[in-house]
Amino acid sequence: MHPFDQAIALKTTDQGFQAHTSPDYANMVGPYGGVTCAILLNAALQHPDRIGVPIALTVNFAAPIADGPYSITARAARTNRSTQHWLIEATQDGGVVALATAVFALRRSTWSADEAQPPQDMPAPETLPRMATDRRPTWVKHYDMRWPQGDVFQQFDGQEYPDSATRAWLRDDPPRALDFASLAAISDHFLPRIFMRRRILTPVGSVSITTYFHADEAALALQGDRFVMGTARALKFHNGFFDQSGEIWSADGQLLASTHQTVYFKA
Amino acid sequence: MHPFDQAIALKTTDQGFQAHTSPDYANMVGPYGGVTCAILLNAALQHPDRIGVPIALTVNFAAPIADGPYSITARAARTNRSTQHWLIEATQDGGVVALATAVFALRRSTWSADEAQPPQDMPAPETLPRMATDRRPTWVKHYDMRWPQGDVFQQFDGQEYPDSATRAWLRDDPPRALDFASLAAISDHFLPRIFMRRRILTPVGSVSITTYFHADEAALALQGDRFVMGTARALKFHNGFFDQSGEIWSADGQLLASTHQTVYFKA
Repeated sequence: MHPFDQAIALKTTDQGFQAHTSPDYANMVGPYGGVTCAILLNAALQHPDRIGVPIALTVNFAAPIADGPYSITARAARTNRSTQHWLIEATQDGGVVALATAVFALRRSTWSADEAQPPQDMPAPETLPRMATDRRPTWVKHYDMRWPQGDVFQQFDGQEYPDSATRAWLRDDPPRALDFASLAAISDHFLPRIFMRRRILTPVGSVSITTYFHADEAALALQGDRFVMGTARALKFHNGFFDQSGEIWSADGQLLASTHQTVYFKA
Repeated sequence: MHPFDQAIALKTTDQGFQAHTSPDYANMVGPYGGVTCAILLNAALQHPDRIGVPIALTVNFAAPIADGPYSITARAARTNRSTQHWLIEATQDGGVVALATAVFALRRSTWSADEAQPPQDMPAPETLPRMATDRRPTWVKHYDMRWPQGDVFQQFDGQEYPDSATRAWLRDDPPRALDFASLAAISDHFLPRIFMRRRILTPVGSVSITTYFHADEAALALQGDRFVMGTARALKFHNGFFDQSGEIWSADGQLLASTHQTVYFKA
């Protein structure tokens, strides 16, 4: 079993589901947020009431999740003819640790168009070195990340940069065919933009993340287990919080997801 | 009393709050979504348990709201030392019509920086004509909108455009000092990007909207009741859904909010 599938596995309980943090995807404090997103989405994906595929997922990280088990309830708050609205709540030791909403839908074939363009002149992933994973949080070891600009962690010189925009290749290690759960996880892989701007390690924490799934099952099948490309940037850093927006592109240049979050930072 | 304040007024009940749709902010079907966002945020703003100011708001529009009263419950799912996570639910006739989460926080003074740039070469609002409001949904009459590119509704020729990006000035009519509730409302004012791309009227409906508040109380006070500038664009239209992202800039060129949504479209 792939470590990601182990990490997002859910046990059915009387009240809903039980999840368990995975040492494979540990972050500095608590689990990697992307895997928490995938677990919460998975509770809706696996729910017997579920219709369609995910369109939108918002996860609010309410409190650190301690190593160990925690409980998840998922409720289809409203089911319409072709859309469904979910409320998903994770609790540990009686306190809410994460709160999510998701929209699922039965997609129909319509007029479609890309407006955003995939990043141009991106070197092929095979030509780039893999980011070092030693002395990094464990979750980083389970993604093969390749940065055309080099390893940002070796560039922490406290020199302020004019912008935070980056792009990189990424895939699960070991490779794993992309699905909605892993796309939700990957949407949180972008390093905090304040690291890019300030090149210092300041305490940070994602507060709320929203991912829009542009990929349907056909797009996921086309992607398979190849590298995806991620681009990210910030708009504003102000008094303790900044936003960042990212895009996840397929190996063929299709936009699979767009994702936005607001992040707490200390200084 | 300003029509917006009437529209977002809440009565306290045993279970939470009662809201009432406002004929002043009626849309084609049901109320203008921006006012629904403001009402849901207002339930947290007015709640005795609330700490701090809004940082993030996600509203999922679960079902059309019929003209008349509806019920709102707001629960502080988690209160930390400096952040608070809210779950806000609106029900009408026993069914969930909207589901929201919000993050509030006590902001502290930190290193801050703008990364996004305000739109350049935007003509002053006084030099632009106001968008016509006749034969438009009622809510449009309560915003003074000024488009440098002219009135898009008079350009519905079915000719496909290469991109959906727009910018415009906007303020409440009559003018009203900006606050968090009106900023939440204004964040949904952007016309559906598919109208910009295809120049046809196809049925649309916002499904989920997320707004990040970059403005604190000082930034709101500086803005007062002047025009804000809104910019918006889409990334992808695919099989029934598209995303759009917008920015709300102050008259002085400060980023007040960034906002993202996914929208259902029929064809």
